[in-house]
Amino acid sequence: MESADLSALGRRARDAARVVASASSALRDDALTQAAELLEGETEAILAANQRDRRRGLEQGLSDAALDRLTLTGPRIAAMAAGLRDVAALADPVGEVVDGWRRPNGLNVSRVRVPLGVVGVIYENRPNVTSDAAALCLKAGNAAFLRGSSGALASNQAIVSVLRRALAKAGLPEDAVVLVEDISRETAVEFMRLRGLIDCLVPRGGRELVATLVEHATVPYVLDGDGNCHVYVDAAADLGMAEEIVVNAKTQRPGVCNAAETLLVHRDIAGEFLPRVARALDGVELVGDERVREVLPDVAPATDEDFATEFLALKLAVGVVDDLDAAIAHIDRYGSGHSEVIVTGDVATAERFVALVDAAAVLINASSRFIDGAELGLGAEVGISTQKLHARGPMGVRELTCLKWVVRGEGQVRR
Amino acid sequence: MESADLSALGRRARDAARVVASASSALRDDALTQAAELLEGETEAILAANQRDRRRGLEQGLSDAALDRLTLTGPRIAAMAAGLRDVAALADPVGEVVDGWRRPNGLNVSRVRVPLGVVGVIYENRPNVTSDAAALCLKAGNAAFLRGSSGALASNQAIVSVLRRALAKAGLPEDAVVLVEDISRETAVEFMRLRGLIDCLVPRGGRELVATLVEHATVPYVLDGDGNCHVYVDAAADLGMAEEIVVNAKTQRPGVCNAAETLLVHRDIAGEFLPRVARALDGVELVGDERVREVLPDVAPATDEDFATEFLALKLAVGVVDDLDAAIAHIDRYGSGHSEVIVTGDVATAERFVALVDAAAVLINASSRFIDGAELGLGAEVGISTQKLHARGPMGVRELTCLKWVVRGEGQVRR
Repeated sequence: MESADLSALGRRARDAARVVASASSALRDDALTQAAELLEGETEAILAANQRDRRRGLEQGLSDAALDRLTLTGPRIAAMAAGLRDVAALADPVGEVVDGWRRPNGLNVSRVRVPLGVVGVIYENRPNVTSDAAALCLKAGNAAFLRGSSGALASNQAIVSVLRRALAKAGLPEDAVVLVEDISRETAVEFMRLRGLIDCLVPRGGRELVATLVEHATVPYVLDGDGNCHVYVDAAADLGMAEEIVVNAKTQRPGVCNAAETLLVHRDIAGEFLPRVARALDGVELVGDERVREVLPDVAPATDEDFATEFLALKLAVGVVDDLDAAIAHIDRYGSGHSEVIVTGDVATAERFVALVDAAAVLINASSRFIDGAELGLGAEVGISTQKLHARGPMGVRELTCLKWVVRGEGQVRR
Repeated sequence: MESADLSALGRRARDAARVVASASSALRDDALTQAAELLEGETEAILAANQRDRRRGLEQGLSDAALDRLTLTGPRIAAMAAGLRDVAALADPVGEVVDGWRRPNGLNVSRVRVPLGVVGVIYENRPNVTSDAAALCLKAGNAAFLRGSSGALASNQAIVSVLRRALAKAGLPEDAVVLVEDISRETAVEFMRLRGLIDCLVPRGGRELVATLVEHATVPYVLDGDGNCHVYVDAAADLGMAEEIVVNAKTQRPGVCNAAETLLVHRDIAGEFLPRVARALDGVELVGDERVREVLPDVAPATDEDFATEFLALKLAVGVVDDLDAAIAHIDRYGSGHSEVIVTGDVATAERFVALVDAAAVLINASSRFIDGAELGLGAEVGISTQKLHARGPMGVRELTCLKWVVRGEGQVRR
């Protein structure tokens, strides 16, 4: 695929989207299965392309975490192929009659799930997003208009080339997956302003990307924002369970948005729980408020900034709160509306937390790490929305569709 | 209510929204019923305020249509009160468990409908929108942050004062309905950029408002855009039914977004249907393409501009098309994604139209005038969305909510 002007690329995707929207699910699934096979068959070529990206990344002094996100391996490519097959195996969301009724005048009204059209995805150095996002878009009957980062361009080109060949093999237009190859800050903004060509833009990136989007985008978008997630350990918590959940939420994979960044502990159990959890969090840098430091004097003081930060690292801010309401107020103030956990054995406390915490997801007695498309049973996810409109929380296939009202009459007119 | 700085007003609405979100539906319904009563009781005062707005409008040379939209009468106020009672009688959307399932690891997952928070509404000279929009916001557990036009300020103040008194009587915070009183183009843009204070902005206005919003808004919004609606009369149509639907869609209320603006006629029936429908459309200015003018030589030629225009008046653009696909292509090119009608007796043709026309609503053998919240059974509507994300088509109470994931565990952690 040669580099082309962005609008022309968008028009190609839009034309392809019309074809994909009315293609049978069998055809779309066939394309995904073919892509899985091709991906496995082309592992060496993709690894070679990835090697070029990694070499450039190393020269540019990428951090270890960034380099890890960029890196593809045989098993990672196999996982991408498995992801494609998993998405193919999902139920087709298109055509679902969501609801419907008959009006007193005899009109039959229904709402039917239809594809969005062209879904734009703008993302950073994770080449696996290329196949995950394209698969979900296609499954939902959309064209995928992808803009990865310049640092992963060779990898993304190799993967997109496979996806396009699979589309052609299935008899679908190749342009149902297109990749922006001219990557600069200017084209990012241009991409966000392709009104009429992008029906929904999904950003997967950090704060700077989101800020640029909010300021400049004219296309509709769904925000995949920060995850400043809290675990609140209530006075009525099982402390063994609480310890396990805190450790899991913080350390099982610290670099992702559903990892915990702040631990809030009820004052009644702070004396017992804090030393215990600090031992269990061996290797995690703790910063704490004054009441934490009364119990754990070696812990450095936590600033306001700490409580507002998504560390994405083995660092945890810790606070002691007087009660549930204080915990909720803290989360209201610092939370990013992603995933919030309470550990408690008390039903009323749990339900009050669920009712009053304003976030995409609230969890009782479970790790925040479960707020993820695959873990919740949606299949691969295209992102986790921290906004309220359209989609909130993990976005799977269904979140890449919209509804169409269908009204069937026999000549009714309005009086 | 005294004028205040916009952000301060927004913060008051946000604080009130938290209270309203956790108030019982009985309390919210009580506020609406009290408001209906007060509205009726204060009819004279509201009419007097409206009289002041109308006098100013007359001085400023408002068009008849604009003056009609601005005008309140006894019966119109009674209709507003009835609207409030109708909304109170709707089922509460808040707390609905939309779906849920159990994961293999025992986690119980559900998605629950919750209020959005603060809903901003920006609208033009229609004072009835003030009570309609506030009622729907409150019903869905939200605070309403209203910005009407300067031309209706006195009317809006009078209505908002009633709504706020009703909230207080029901024991809810008055600030669950706030009105922007400092009205200028600058504050419109400022209003659209109250990120963090407005969870969803609903504009009800013309193209200029929408363009300003798309360019400047940083808050999430749902577009209530133009309605360039088509009626396509197929070769297999019952021509009597077609005539009735065209006349109804064009003339029953020409100034609204679900009125028809273009008639497309299959070439096989053009010779018979066009003269007939032209007679029935007596008083409507017709403009037609060349093939229409072969049949109706007195009709003025239609320009490209005509086919792209939402006339909102007794004017109709007419075209002859070769077949269904040509009709769909015309709608693709000129339509605004609002409501599209086919009149046909042929099932396959009807279903192909439904599948391929990309619009919020498609209708078979019924007038486009039915695409309206009340007509479809949603109660009063806060607008008709022509975008694809979040809400598409008439937006009632349900469209003013979002979902929250609730995950209940017994100590599960991720492996």
